[in-house]
Amino acid sequence: MNADYVRKKFLQIHQNLIQSLFQCDSKVVKQTEQWNRSEGGGGKTCAFSNGLYLEKGGINFSDVKGSKLPPTALADRPELTESPFRAMGVSVVFHPQNPHIPTAHANIRFFTATDHNGGDVWWFGGGFDLTPYYPILEDVIFWHKEAKKLCDDFDESIYSLFKKQCDEYFYLPHRGETRGVGGIFFDDLCLNDFETTLRFCERVMAVYSSSFFTLFDKRKKMPFTDHEREFQSYRRGRYVEFNLVYDRGTHFGLQSGGRTESILMSMPPVANWIYDWTPEIGSKEEDLYENFLKPVDWLNLKS
Amino acid sequence: MNADYVRKKFLQIHQNLIQSLFQCDSKVVKQTEQWNRSEGGGGKTCAFSNGLYLEKGGINFSDVKGSKLPPTALADRPELTESPFRAMGVSVVFHPQNPHIPTAHANIRFFTATDHNGGDVWWFGGGFDLTPYYPILEDVIFWHKEAKKLCDDFDESIYSLFKKQCDEYFYLPHRGETRGVGGIFFDDLCLNDFETTLRFCERVMAVYSSSFFTLFDKRKKMPFTDHEREFQSYRRGRYVEFNLVYDRGTHFGLQSGGRTESILMSMPPVANWIYDWTPEIGSKEEDLYENFLKPVDWLNLKS
Repeated sequence: MNADYVRKKFLQIHQNLIQSLFQCDSKVVKQTEQWNRSEGGGGKTCAFSNGLYLEKGGINFSDVKGSKLPPTALADRPELTESPFRAMGVSVVFHPQNPHIPTAHANIRFFTATDHNGGDVWWFGGGFDLTPYYPILEDVIFWHKEAKKLCDDFDESIYSLFKKQCDEYFYLPHRGETRGVGGIFFDDLCLNDFETTLRFCERVMAVYSSSFFTLFDKRKKMPFTDHEREFQSYRRGRYVEFNLVYDRGTHFGLQSGGRTESILMSMPPVANWIYDWTPEIGSKEEDLYENFLKPVDWLNLKS
Repeated sequence: MNADYVRKKFLQIHQNLIQSLFQCDSKVVKQTEQWNRSEGGGGKTCAFSNGLYLEKGGINFSDVKGSKLPPTALADRPELTESPFRAMGVSVVFHPQNPHIPTAHANIRFFTATDHNGGDVWWFGGGFDLTPYYPILEDVIFWHKEAKKLCDDFDESIYSLFKKQCDEYFYLPHRGETRGVGGIFFDDLCLNDFETTLRFCERVMAVYSSSFFTLFDKRKKMPFTDHEREFQSYRRGRYVEFNLVYDRGTHFGLQSGGRTESILMSMPPVANWIYDWTPEIGSKEEDLYENFLKPVDWLNLKS
């Protein structure tokens, strides 16, 4: 295990994502900020806005140290209470303008901590998920096919597990809805060994990038209406609710004294709330609610 | 102590608020919903939208029972863990369209619970606070003068305490900002006796209503620009952040299985997030940040 080697790899992934975005949307405006945290470590935030197709987005790298793991990171590891730690991550959110392109999020993270006997503990986490407004079934199936291929290359049992974890994690209990159509999500991960697990995380980001930009390119010129933009804005409200009420990454960031503007770069450009809104029967909006915002086995659909 | 008597009074307050709103904005659209909760109790939600001057708002009454007080209500009363309870409340939020009228919120609440010895425990809570976008100093002073008069009629020591509690409660640590210019906030309240405390809560809502509608009437015809509307939308993002990340009322509602659309009626109609936005030097927006979004002793300003 070599944390500085992980850092190098994560920075490379960060760079690759930025390049891929510029290839698909050369007009997008980039703002970069290097930041430091008083307790130790820092990060690099790249925020994007006003592209031809990307309305708002962010690609963040962070590498922070602390004397005590925050509560959000301790849920599954109570034995590390009060442990010094180092947490590294790359996280990405893209909010395209066109309501026919989904919002897409991914992150990978690496933790090291010292347990009470002075031993080193490490684990990886990460995943990606897709949040369509006007979902296109073939795109959703493509997204999950790519995810499954990636997982199968490492272990044929993990896709179904990570897919289930994603549906469970990106769930809004107060709405009775999933955030979108999911993808994969994993935490406390060690696949065989350190090298294999790191390689898996690298592939997670590469597949996220290739899958998302494939959909982005395919749908970016689809015409859309004001009504569709309004609905996108309404649904972006759910994205805000998830990130602020439930997301562990957001809470970890705020609890560990991270840089607020970097943590909240995941917010959409705009969000609406309309009291007690329900979709019209037979509409495309109802199709989203009825057929997509729940756990579905996308690769074994019954027709 | 008579909970059904509190219920009668709270329902009257709820009704008065609705009447006052219609007097100031006769065109506002009202949607009413009576709802029940499977565990016991229910409420009455009145949502408002598309007024001449009120963009979105809500006036809620709720009266819920449960077998276990949720964690958010236990922070100051650990001895009531696992206690059966009844919680009643009236809460109000008004989001005017004109950025020169502040957003204003108020609530009063009444709890009864049975302690481990079978004894009855009760307390009141509540308060009101003001969130301006383009603050007008005389309006802020008026708001606090009215609050102080109300408090002084009961006890001359409480305004400064409740004002401080309001500044502390409506604070966003991750932004280093107060939500607005405050008002009063109290919890676990018993002023002398039950009757006096209930009367205080009635006055809180009456003064909130008269103060807010005075400002509303005074400013509703002030001209405003698109730029000012944009800034209002950006600042409404902070309102969303506060309510979803910190507000105990919102968390109590979601944790106790309340009706989601009633709890989230406090959301603004629309909110923006712009990465790393800062106000221009010397602008009216900077004035808000520099002179208003912090605890200030409004009734003893040094000129």
